[in-house]
Amino acid sequence: MPSKIYIGLVHYPIYDKRHAVVASAVTNFDLHDIARTARTFGVNGFYMITPLESQIQLIQRILHHWTDGKGSIYNATRKESFSLVRIAKTIEEASEEISISCERQTLRVATGAKSHPGSLSFGEMRRIIEGSEAPFLILFGTGWGLTHEVKESCDYILTPIEGRGYNHLPVRAAVAIILDRLLGDRVF
Amino acid sequence: MPSKIYIGLVHYPIYDKRHAVVASAVTNFDLHDIARTARTFGVNGFYMITPLESQIQLIQRILHHWTDGKGSIYNATRKESFSLVRIAKTIEEASEEISISCERQTLRVATGAKSHPGSLSFGEMRRIIEGSEAPFLILFGTGWGLTHEVKESCDYILTPIEGRGYNHLPVRAAVAIILDRLLGDRVF
Repeated sequence: MPSKIYIGLVHYPIYDKRHAVVASAVTNFDLHDIARTARTFGVNGFYMITPLESQIQLIQRILHHWTDGKGSIYNATRKESFSLVRIAKTIEEASEEISISCERQTLRVATGAKSHPGSLSFGEMRRIIEGSEAPFLILFGTGWGLTHEVKESCDYILTPIEGRGYNHLPVRAAVAIILDRLLGDRVF
Repeated sequence: MPSKIYIGLVHYPIYDKRHAVVASAVTNFDLHDIARTARTFGVNGFYMITPLESQIQLIQRILHHWTDGKGSIYNATRKESFSLVRIAKTIEEASEEISISCERQTLRVATGAKSHPGSLSFGEMRRIIEGSEAPFLILFGTGWGLTHEVKESCDYILTPIEGRGYNHLPVRAAVAIILDRLLGDRVF
């Protein structure tokens, strides 16, 4: 059985511009773009991770509009992608929920724009996923990225996407490129 | 000399949901995300293509904020990516401007979510770019995509990104994946 792939968009704990650990605001655009990208690559679930009750309510309101409300009639493909969205208060809560549903320990993968000791290449990570039956939770940081502690707590850390002297990709674009590199069609 | 790569986000002519040919509205998010992605992959210029004067003024206002206004102080990396943005009223105008600046005929590449006869794989297109000194203008459609006539008028048509039974990627994600496949680091 192929391994199941989940992604998590982390709104806490992340760094802000000044390297302080903060909770970022949920954005409507992240939800739409990343759900559509996740659906394209056959991801099994997309966790919006935030501990803030006001932000959880915002996500629920957007989801309701597109899955049960007027949006579901206007755009059925959006409903299809939004069916992947889950909400978790912490990274641990998301991991545990996946482990229970898959009846196997979840392996966590950290991503980021900066290099980190012991990080894996995309090819190495792809082969690990292909050779495993465990569920994987790939974590993406909002703001200025996942904290050092979160990265260290993961089972794997992915090498950054190398830009031409510029490493400020939107998280939405990073998710698209990383899912394509790990799960996309390799027939060139 | 390696070929220069330009991208164009086409707001007219494109299809709407009902396959009518329309002009779409410019969005702030497309401008930010695609400029950052273009800068990451070393793209030489990013054309916002729209014939509508009100939309051109909107783009100019956003650009001014981030390149000369308060935004340029708040976020210097945004200024750097926005320096790639150009405005053209038509695809032809963008092509001609590139041809004049590069002193060579611009080759146009169409992209889309649906398959089209005679389309090239990403590997084939990548090798053509690597083997050429001509400038390339890669066109992305907003809304429901580039018109049949625009595709037919291009020198090359790229095969779609294959999703798992779902081809509704946001244009911002499609730009990221396609630039990575054509220009990104292939060391896996």
